[in-house]
Amino acid sequence: MISFKNDYSEGACEAILELMQAENREQHPGYGTDAICEEARRLILEQIDCPQAAVHFLVGGTQTNRIVIANTLRPYEAVIAVETGHINTHETGAIESSGHKVIAVAGKDGKILPEAIEQAVAAHPDEHMVKPAMVYISNATEIGTIYTEQELAAVSAVCRKLGLKLFVDGARLGSALTAQGNDLTLKKLAELCDVFYIGGTKNGALFGEAVVITNPELDCNFRYMMKQSGALLAKGWLLGLQFLGLFRSETFFKLAGHANAMADQIRAGLKKAGIPLLTETPTNQIFPILENKKMEVLSREVAFETWEKADDTHTVIRLVTSWATTQEQVDKLLSLL
Amino acid sequence: MISFKNDYSEGACEAILELMQAENREQHPGYGTDAICEEARRLILEQIDCPQAAVHFLVGGTQTNRIVIANTLRPYEAVIAVETGHINTHETGAIESSGHKVIAVAGKDGKILPEAIEQAVAAHPDEHMVKPAMVYISNATEIGTIYTEQELAAVSAVCRKLGLKLFVDGARLGSALTAQGNDLTLKKLAELCDVFYIGGTKNGALFGEAVVITNPELDCNFRYMMKQSGALLAKGWLLGLQFLGLFRSETFFKLAGHANAMADQIRAGLKKAGIPLLTETPTNQIFPILENKKMEVLSREVAFETWEKADDTHTVIRLVTSWATTQEQVDKLLSLL
Amino acid sequence: MISFKNDYSEGACEAILELMQAENREQHPGYGTDAICEEARRLILEQIDCPQAAVHFLVGGTQTNRIVIANTLRPYEAVIAVETGHINTHETGAIESSGHKVIAVAGKDGKILPEAIEQAVAAHPDEHMVKPAMVYISNATEIGTIYTEQELAAVSAVCRKLGLKLFVDGARLGSALTAQGNDLTLKKLAELCDVFYIGGTKNGALFGEAVVITNPELDCNFRYMMKQSGALLAKGWLLGLQFLGLFRSETFFKLAGHANAMADQIRAGLKKAGIPLLTETPTNQIFPILENKKMEVLSREVAFETWEKADDTHTVIRLVTSWATTQEQVDKLLSLL
Amino acid sequence: MISFKNDYSEGACEAILELMQAENREQHPGYGTDAICEEARRLILEQIDCPQAAVHFLVGGTQTNRIVIANTLRPYEAVIAVETGHINTHETGAIESSGHKVIAVAGKDGKILPEAIEQAVAAHPDEHMVKPAMVYISNATEIGTIYTEQELAAVSAVCRKLGLKLFVDGARLGSALTAQGNDLTLKKLAELCDVFYIGGTKNGALFGEAVVITNPELDCNFRYMMKQSGALLAKGWLLGLQFLGLFRSETFFKLAGHANAMADQIRAGLKKAGIPLLTETPTNQIFPILENKKMEVLSREVAFETWEKADDTHTVIRLVTSWATTQEQVDKLLSLL
Repeated sequence: MISFKNDYSEGACEAILELMQAENREQHPGYGTDAICEEARRLILEQIDCPQAAVHFLVGGTQTNRIVIANTLRPYEAVIAVETGHINTHETGAIESSGHKVIAVAGKDGKILPEAIEQAVAAHPDEHMVKPAMVYISNATEIGTIYTEQELAAVSAVCRKLGLKLFVDGARLGSALTAQGNDLTLKKLAELCDVFYIGGTKNGALFGEAVVITNPELDCNFRYMMKQSGALLAKGWLLGLQFLGLFRSETFFKLAGHANAMADQIRAGLKKAGIPLLTETPTNQIFPILENKKMEVLSREVAFETWEKADDTHTVIRLVTSWATTQEQVDKLLSLL
Repeated sequence: MISFKNDYSEGACEAILELMQAENREQHPGYGTDAICEEARRLILEQIDCPQAAVHFLVGGTQTNRIVIANTLRPYEAVIAVETGHINTHETGAIESSGHKVIAVAGKDGKILPEAIEQAVAAHPDEHMVKPAMVYISNATEIGTIYTEQELAAVSAVCRKLGLKLFVDGARLGSALTAQGNDLTLKKLAELCDVFYIGGTKNGALFGEAVVITNPELDCNFRYMMKQSGALLAKGWLLGLQFLGLFRSETFFKLAGHANAMADQIRAGLKKAGIPLLTETPTNQIFPILENKKMEVLSREVAFETWEKADDTHTVIRLVTSWATTQEQVDKLLSLL
Repeated sequence: MISFKNDYSEGACEAILELMQAENREQHPGYGTDAICEEARRLILEQIDCPQAAVHFLVGGTQTNRIVIANTLRPYEAVIAVETGHINTHETGAIESSGHKVIAVAGKDGKILPEAIEQAVAAHPDEHMVKPAMVYISNATEIGTIYTEQELAAVSAVCRKLGLKLFVDGARLGSALTAQGNDLTLKKLAELCDVFYIGGTKNGALFGEAVVITNPELDCNFRYMMKQSGALLAKGWLLGLQFLGLFRSETFFKLAGHANAMADQIRAGLKKAGIPLLTETPTNQIFPILENKKMEVLSREVAFETWEKADDTHTVIRLVTSWATTQEQVDKLLSLL
Repeated sequence: MISFKNDYSEGACEAILELMQAENREQHPGYGTDAICEEARRLILEQIDCPQAAVHFLVGGTQTNRIVIANTLRPYEAVIAVETGHINTHETGAIESSGHKVIAVAGKDGKILPEAIEQAVAAHPDEHMVKPAMVYISNATEIGTIYTEQELAAVSAVCRKLGLKLFVDGARLGSALTAQGNDLTLKKLAELCDVFYIGGTKNGALFGEAVVITNPELDCNFRYMMKQSGALLAKGWLLGLQFLGLFRSETFFKLAGHANAMADQIRAGLKKAGIPLLTETPTNQIFPILENKKMEVLSREVAFETWEKADDTHTVIRLVTSWATTQEQVDKLLSLL
């Protein structure tokens, strides 16, 4: 049985494993105050050419979303997201549990539209309603699409005009930035938003998300918020080490590029087999629409998520590739389609 | 200038004012443990023929919604409501501030449909999503419509089937129960839900909402929750007194009936004047669609809320009558339409 | 049976009742945006000679404490209070329910000492601990003592030095400011703190606390916080009216002075009867230490709170006078001691 | 420079590193639903001979404390802990951030006394105060002492009598259970409390705490709470793997025993050098009282925490050994004392 269920089935890439072996018996200061974290921070900031930004390392995505948002908003403030946004659907109310409403708006291909932001703000004019104060987007989005530079710039512009902070969830940022058709750089992304994070968990790290805060307002006492939320890892150097491994020698981009290349092969195979897709995506998530019978057969040898019912005889499934996907796995999959 | 802006412009009905004068210098035990509250509770429970239910008196609606919901749900549980539900739109995120997501579903005429409840539950199957545990509805709804007994029974049945608690916001319950076409009784309502409240603020009381909890699970330590939320009024007897005034001699129903009768006259006048309505409503809220020019003229002598833009030359406004609306006010309004 | 249990047994003073009668049938804008509130605000600001301060009217003390503190603190910040502070003992965790720790420090006669504040701050140096950001005191304190101007100035100075906001709970502020030995004025109090409130509930109003915010930072979106907490009263003019009644013709001070005068008589009577006190207090709360046998006899004709066990044969009780306490009640009490 | 600052400076023990290498490229189901977690659970439950208990793997201690407590308490309920308890001092208000008060009581040698629990409950009799519902203790305690079976049984008995849940923080449980003088077994501990956790982070794991819930009430929807708190690790198998490594071949106890043995040598050395201790501790934390001059000299070659000022010329420091402490490090330290 091979699995295309998700991009977090395996452990870490070799570069990281080697670093772990090398550092395992060294004594490191606790809570991310060590030299490894320092070096990982430097490497990340080099990428965005913004040495004054803050970088914090957290363990997972839901934790990161909750902390970034809760540290930004005052109690009655809310965050705007598309209906399919991860914080709106798949975090068990983590944002609400910190006291804040998620204002869900309709998106297009999983992306937020500037006019939807304007409408949401217009619809919340006074103290009888929550006060929109932040916009949350994901790149790649939850359904595998990506923002072009122009699209992100438009979202950014409306946020700045309306006094909203812009937060980019980058759990799959590597895949977005190395996708065919992408014209966005990490540096440009950093300029256009107030805070974003670089996902390690889904791109070759054991775990870890690196939050980059370019707007210093949002960094205020961030470590207090991390500690209170149980997100200040005792052996914080382990998190720094993940990103040291990813950002030395461009490993981060190479791994993501590999995942995309594997997905491209699958997309080509699906096209050849005449299997339609729910959405065109250039990243490591693919949503083919399979005949139910075919799906059943496939499921005997391949693990995947069923996404939604298409019609009475068809189902949308999700296939995900990763840094660890092998050519053999892809070949096997294609032979079954 | 006369106002049809809302149903909480004036003070209290005569019956209540007289009681206040009579009791003002008496010494009452604090926090709702007094004889007046006891008698008011008895009168309410008599109405629903359910002596074992619990009754608590709170000051206002948002406070009540927040406390009832937060005392029912565990941290990761959510409440389902229609998109137009008061808790979803006009409470500044009070429910979210207590940690809980409001799952907003499309309604019909401001009312929830049983199938929407089923779909919402089906869409939240596991621990990556919030867990629906309660359904919140308002009767009358936020746009002035009412639930028939059959409609409420259908909602109740689906809630019981799915293990959801049913909560009825009765801020305008008086108006609903005395509306033309209503076939629901207070007793039947009480049977069909787990908890509801009887709105005093909008029906002749100075302030006050009487929460009636028929499902004893939901009453667990309710007074702790009230106190923690700053909702255990020191002079709690004042709240009991409001409901004593309302439920002696059927005053509650008479006042609501008066408000509806005034609204009926306005509805008839609008019809005669050929002015269309946004929705047919039998209660004390009316939503006429006015030509903008007419609206402007009207606004010089009458205060009202503008509800939404209808088209480029028309606007929906909201007119609200109350227990205190006079025939003179209605005549004046009609003369201007 | 007469009661000295508390200062919130009765309704409202005559001035307020008359205003309520007069305004009952008028149509007022909702939520505290009316002319009565405006006038009440003006009268209060006149007292403190600080026209730019903000005044908000809330219903009760716990509600007020929770909202003021939660609107000031960021999520990981904490408020310092004496162990006997109301927020630490008698609000069912209202402050914690808004996410904030109360750092309890030992007090002296119910009052906080500047050095205790300094120690509390020194004990919380980094992100592994909460961050002290506010000091909460009550005047009169929970055990009936008062702050002199010098004492309050010293507390204020240490707060300003350490960057802490100072909040004064004035649920019994009237009694404090009219007590024998008091040298503090409302104006001076306002200068020395960032926010305080003037208690109406315990001094002649039906209900109501007037929050005065002299530090504009703390007023940021305060009405959002009120609405979210269920504390924006629909008929907000009722609250304004309470303070209009209290601050026209110095009624507020006269009522509090009466309560103190009644308490002074009781203190004198206790002294004469050789009954010792737990603490010397100049306000409307008295804590005599009674022989258990005497306490039992007294309890047959007078209601009071038992405070704590003094020794095997003695108990501390609490006697409270109010604006409504009559000479007859005091005479009766004294005759029984 | 060698460090005795804490027990989380190094990575993982060999057994765990080997498992990580072996499993790194395997595809595992996400979120702790994999076979490795299953096997780790089985090994732990074998230890306590309680196959029906639930085991969940979390990343760190603060996270675990917050989730266990918040999943147990209703909104107005509180947890009792000693003043030195980790949740009361060093978690940045994590418990309060979930809405709950920590009732801090004086302890004895870092341990809670049954009578202190009884007093705390007696002091919180009604709805004006929080409702004590849980007792939190640590074993080993925050100052290195341990509970004997008799002591724990007495605490457990009073909890059961009063209807309080008992929660044991076992961040340093390995050290406690292998300390000289310990007579408590893991099995007995499990019987005496409702929930506890086994600390991996400080005893040879990369990270990880294994929560064991013997009272099924406390396990209700625990995974929802984990996910909402950002504590459901995507690669959950990594956590299972830590405990697989620790509980195969008794590694957990051997590592802890080693840390204690190293500490015993240091204790002996201190005694020989005539250096007094703050408290007698049998675990891996030692609190010597050093002359300031000696402390300064020591600090040039050894890293440690300063604990508190003893007097004008002496300071208490904290020395911590771990599974990774070497004989060379101990010898070096002893040579400097």
